[in-house]
Amino acid sequence: MLLRPHCCGIVRSLFNNRNHNKPRKLLWRSVSSAAMRLVQFHRLGDGGGIRVGVEQGEGLGVVDLKAFDPSMPSTMKELLELGDQGLECAERALSSGQFVLERSHIQLLAPVLAPEKVVCVGMNYRDHCLEQNAPIPKEPIIFSKFPSAITGPYDDIILPSESEEVDWEVELAFVIGRRGKHIKEEDALSYVAGFTVANDVSARDWQMKRNGKQWLLGKTFDSFCPLGPALVTTDAIKDPHNLALRCLVNGESVQSSNTDQMIFKTEALVSWVSKFVTLTPGDVFLTGTPPGVGVFRKPPVYLKKGDVVECQIEHLGSIINKVV
Amino acid sequence: MLLRPHCCGIVRSLFNNRNHNKPRKLLWRSVSSAAMRLVQFHRLGDGGGIRVGVEQGEGLGVVDLKAFDPSMPSTMKELLELGDQGLECAERALSSGQFVLERSHIQLLAPVLAPEKVVCVGMNYRDHCLEQNAPIPKEPIIFSKFPSAITGPYDDIILPSESEEVDWEVELAFVIGRRGKHIKEEDALSYVAGFTVANDVSARDWQMKRNGKQWLLGKTFDSFCPLGPALVTTDAIKDPHNLALRCLVNGESVQSSNTDQMIFKTEALVSWVSKFVTLTPGDVFLTGTPPGVGVFRKPPVYLKKGDVVECQIEHLGSIINKVV
Repeated sequence: MLLRPHCCGIVRSLFNNRNHNKPRKLLWRSVSSAAMRLVQFHRLGDGGGIRVGVEQGEGLGVVDLKAFDPSMPSTMKELLELGDQGLECAERALSSGQFVLERSHIQLLAPVLAPEKVVCVGMNYRDHCLEQNAPIPKEPIIFSKFPSAITGPYDDIILPSESEEVDWEVELAFVIGRRGKHIKEEDALSYVAGFTVANDVSARDWQMKRNGKQWLLGKTFDSFCPLGPALVTTDAIKDPHNLALRCLVNGESVQSSNTDQMIFKTEALVSWVSKFVTLTPGDVFLTGTPPGVGVFRKPPVYLKKGDVVECQIEHLGSIINKVV
Repeated sequence: MLLRPHCCGIVRSLFNNRNHNKPRKLLWRSVSSAAMRLVQFHRLGDGGGIRVGVEQGEGLGVVDLKAFDPSMPSTMKELLELGDQGLECAERALSSGQFVLERSHIQLLAPVLAPEKVVCVGMNYRDHCLEQNAPIPKEPIIFSKFPSAITGPYDDIILPSESEEVDWEVELAFVIGRRGKHIKEEDALSYVAGFTVANDVSARDWQMKRNGKQWLLGKTFDSFCPLGPALVTTDAIKDPHNLALRCLVNGESVQSSNTDQMIFKTEALVSWVSKFVTLTPGDVFLTGTPPGVGVFRKPPVYLKKGDVVECQIEHLGSIINKVV
């Protein structure tokens, strides 16, 4: 792994390779077998742009990928577009133990910015459907946010003056790692670079009562998609559909469930959406929320200035966003 | 205008400047006063990438902007991000009369690719609302396509096996030229780089009957947003809300109306959407369609393989797409 630490050619991962007997088309999957927590960040004080890094562990120091290898790109999307080569370089950077930045010297950004798509899934938790007396969907319900809604894991949620009913939704998110169309469910995970935590912030008045009942506007105000803290690679997660997830508002638990309640799981969602559109590296999927959102409380509860919303998912981490 | 033909610094346009007494914030508007038809293209046979050019007239030769000034970017989005500087350089390139490529040597692409947003407006023509006995909306109805739906002005529309009800919709489109939020209607046109022709291809089964009635999937199949042929700058169009527009299927006129039927006009749409999201150079708006779509015919008519759809808008041009 360290034979060519500053040269990111194609080298197969030598460990944790679950698919070593699989045919060539699964090479990407085998290479992604390195368990990593990939992040995007700014270095504080240097006025520089976006950088990609690898966490030494949740909340620990971050290896600066471009410092390790100046030929590497500065954004996660570009890193994913490199496929094997980019991820292998990230592995070697992590293994090097060098070019480590302390957390106090960086600001974490959303792990992906400017994706081509933010694909969202509605009504995708059994317990969330029960909460609102809605039938279990027979097909995924797909809507979207504009990429301009994405904000960092610790950035503010900006309460728009246009809404009185801004609500929280903790969600498992995943990020596409390679281009594909008409992807079969059995191949789907090989198209997923990794998982992260999202808050699908929602203006219920705009989502449910206005805009001809098209959800887009209520879902896509600027800052309505906090994302992070890290893109945790697929092989770092034993089972993405057995993860505890919670949302806390001002420290009080308001949502608490498990991704085992998802109706359409990652593989089904990748396959479904790829019937319609070509998926491309960096595309973000938000996979739906469990019960406990504000709009279905009696009486309803909405976010107000000063509130602090924390979304947690087991093994992935927490995002903490203040409402301003 | 030709003092620095190969150096694109800030030089104010000396003619056709309607706003010369307006304050500084309108400078962009005054500079965009040059009437141009901006295009994106491939040079045939050289295997090169995307280029930006300026048509010498509708359907005439195209000045290759990067050949005129190698410091200029290769994509329309990047050109728009340069603001004044980019448009002035395009003006000088056009004035130079040099670096002209014949049409037979290029393939036109959509004038914008990979925008951050494709914003669409539903039910925005009075006559289209009457056609379906629907009330005139009191607010714009906003939905979206993913940017992956965009295809070129003469490219094929790919009929997906997942839909039996693929329909046409000729639409006036416009493209955002500079970044803004909470834009006032009276300032809105200064944020619009120009206009073009779109076909908002729509799978009615997916739009109207499935996906929880969220329109996204029915609107966003790959190739469902033919766009072009040129981005006609705002000042080349005397009144964007008084343009004849037509759709022809296999040469037969199926839609024929005028943009004066638009309920929410360009200024209102820019202002409305910018309440929700930050607009950014390259964002594409599709402004709704007039009557004559296939789904409301008796009996309904849908596109089939081999059909040729032509969308025409006065002063902007035609896009012609074969259904395959």
